[in-house]
Amino acid sequence: MPHPSRRSSVAPFQVMSILDRVAQLRAQGRDAISLCAGEPSGGAPRQVRELATSTHAGDQALGYTSALGLWELREAIAGHYGRWYGLDVPAERVAVTTGSSGAFMLTFLAAFDPGDVVVLARPGYPAYRNILDTLGCRVVEVDCGAEVGFQPTPELLDGVLAEHGSVAGLVIASPANPTGTMIDRERMAALAAWCAEHDVRLVSDEIYHGITYPTDPAAPDARGVCAWDVPGAESAVVVSSFSKYWGMTGWRLGWALLPEDLSGAVDALAGNVALCPPAPAQYAALGAFSDATYADADARVADLARTRAVLLDDVPHLGWGPVAPADGAFYLYAGLGERLGSYASSVEWCEALLEQEGVAVVPGVDFDGARGQEYVRLSFAAGAEAVREAVRRIERFQGSVS
Amino acid sequence: MPHPSRRSSVAPFQVMSILDRVAQLRAQGRDAISLCAGEPSGGAPRQVRELATSTHAGDQALGYTSALGLWELREAIAGHYGRWYGLDVPAERVAVTTGSSGAFMLTFLAAFDPGDVVVLARPGYPAYRNILDTLGCRVVEVDCGAEVGFQPTPELLDGVLAEHGSVAGLVIASPANPTGTMIDRERMAALAAWCAEHDVRLVSDEIYHGITYPTDPAAPDARGVCAWDVPGAESAVVVSSFSKYWGMTGWRLGWALLPEDLSGAVDALAGNVALCPPAPAQYAALGAFSDATYADADARVADLARTRAVLLDDVPHLGWGPVAPADGAFYLYAGLGERLGSYASSVEWCEALLEQEGVAVVPGVDFDGARGQEYVRLSFAAGAEAVREAVRRIERFQGSVS
Repeated sequence: MPHPSRRSSVAPFQVMSILDRVAQLRAQGRDAISLCAGEPSGGAPRQVRELATSTHAGDQALGYTSALGLWELREAIAGHYGRWYGLDVPAERVAVTTGSSGAFMLTFLAAFDPGDVVVLARPGYPAYRNILDTLGCRVVEVDCGAEVGFQPTPELLDGVLAEHGSVAGLVIASPANPTGTMIDRERMAALAAWCAEHDVRLVSDEIYHGITYPTDPAAPDARGVCAWDVPGAESAVVVSSFSKYWGMTGWRLGWALLPEDLSGAVDALAGNVALCPPAPAQYAALGAFSDATYADADARVADLARTRAVLLDDVPHLGWGPVAPADGAFYLYAGLGERLGSYASSVEWCEALLEQEGVAVVPGVDFDGARGQEYVRLSFAAGAEAVREAVRRIERFQGSVS
Repeated sequence: MPHPSRRSSVAPFQVMSILDRVAQLRAQGRDAISLCAGEPSGGAPRQVRELATSTHAGDQALGYTSALGLWELREAIAGHYGRWYGLDVPAERVAVTTGSSGAFMLTFLAAFDPGDVVVLARPGYPAYRNILDTLGCRVVEVDCGAEVGFQPTPELLDGVLAEHGSVAGLVIASPANPTGTMIDRERMAALAAWCAEHDVRLVSDEIYHGITYPTDPAAPDARGVCAWDVPGAESAVVVSSFSKYWGMTGWRLGWALLPEDLSGAVDALAGNVALCPPAPAQYAALGAFSDATYADADARVADLARTRAVLLDDVPHLGWGPVAPADGAFYLYAGLGERLGSYASSVEWCEALLEQEGVAVVPGVDFDGARGQEYVRLSFAAGAEAVREAVRRIERFQGSVS
């Protein structure tokens, strides 16, 4: 018999097995609150759904589009960068992709060779590491604790460079999953300058832009700082998506802003590995850029902000350890501290919480192989009522174990 | 500046630049007939479009599905193997993917390591080679001429094994693109047995199944022989798609039938590299398996059969060289022979034909790096009238050059 490849040993998400267990419990008639979701509730904006059911998506032959997407959509995305950031992005440099997942795969293929060192922050989104592993890159994770806002610094990167001799890439995310922390303008400029100085490709994951909780929503950079908006980022790749701010996770539509030297390669790679992004989603996404759609999406962010406030009020009662600030996205990442009790790790703690109280949260091990066993991630996309009830149940659970 | 990866030198399709030129000509008001399409005209079946515009796709929150797709869809695909082939395929072994492209990427990632020798037929679909190259596999192309029906034989594979020492994989396609030739039951059994004997992973591309032109449509194997339907194929991967028989190219939805040893790996890889296949397409595809949908799709195949008959009647007048039999799919692959005239290759010949007569066909170089410069591929998905007019213009073009 032939055998699976070595890369077949890729780690599955813990979160997947938890979601399966939630589904089982609900199928048994048990009440379960899931704070696991990586997606906002509510789905796509009305304007998008209307376009999806109109002639474009419903009645026409939806054939292949260009490998990098409909030209009209690439122009609309370029226009979005004018609207939000005052940036003049040429539509030629926008690649529409099959979710941000497609953008990461194409970017990593075009930018990195096997053996190249690519640096990630720990904690961080596990698929970066797993895709890069799969492609034969050498992933180096930098511990980014509360003291550095859970984000890399030039000093930490100097350390990696000293240890490994050369670095090909740095992947950053702001707002970050799982911590929700953001990279401000000063830090972004410092990271871009460090990358430029050392010939390092910067890849900036900005899929949670717009889901932010600034004290002044009209302040500059309130929606997040785009990597293309600081000096020295000429070779950077920006990745974003319709999944989060627009709530279109299942549609699988994202994009990349490409530096000039990668544009042709990504086009050719996309034509071979994907052919094109899903056409129904592309036609529907043309409805994402109207004033009304932005207003609707912003109203949903305001809802998330109210839920976040409820959660931040309640969390101190739980007696947990360090809590990341959740400046953006819709996650709260927290150390359990002494509340871990006698459980071996947050994996067992989360399993017990789900079985005893019907509350699903994600253990930190998906995001941090070093210290994640002491952490949990709560998604507050489920809404204020679910969050309030979940916190009550977690208190009861902790009372029973301590 | 960082530099693009070595794999960035992937070859673009010739066909893409031709499609661009067709669009330019049409924008200039010039009449152009395109026989380039890799997609049937007409788009998705009515039942699928109705589901796409119903509550599922239009009004609901279309969140992430399971990484391998909606369970209901996996069951429906498994049922399709009962209907067409009398095969009992467990739904657990069906992986819904983002087009067959997604299935190939996941299969190649799970099955092959960098450096592994994977054998392809030449001529063949170029994305196999390009994806495998990108993943660091060693692609060995076997020349499969008219004398072997443009398909590999155990004898040819023995030759590869003798030359390279070990072979990890064999990718076959039936009906094949660009030649339209098919692998009959005897040949499929022989290839599966050869793979089993030499621990070679067989990957069978069956995306054109159902688009076939048998003398007796009710005969066994008339829709194509499934690799899982012959002895010795326990470790084989079958890849198929909603794109061709169901006309859903732009929706990006395909599937793989996975052997037991790859199922877990593909699940974990899919969760990392794709998250899930597009949800709107998945809900819509639930409409693909009704009696009425099959009847509609079969009626379209009957249309293609009439167009094919027109083309096969006309082609002898063109004075071309070898013509592949076009037993399935909707392509005619033909050598230009003396009609190449003074052109350096079919690339220049096709360019001149498009400029002078407004007829777009694809040069064979995309499909055969060795002899493709003497060949062209005509898609007859454009319909009988377009084909008839195109042949008239090609005759006129050839008259002007010879």
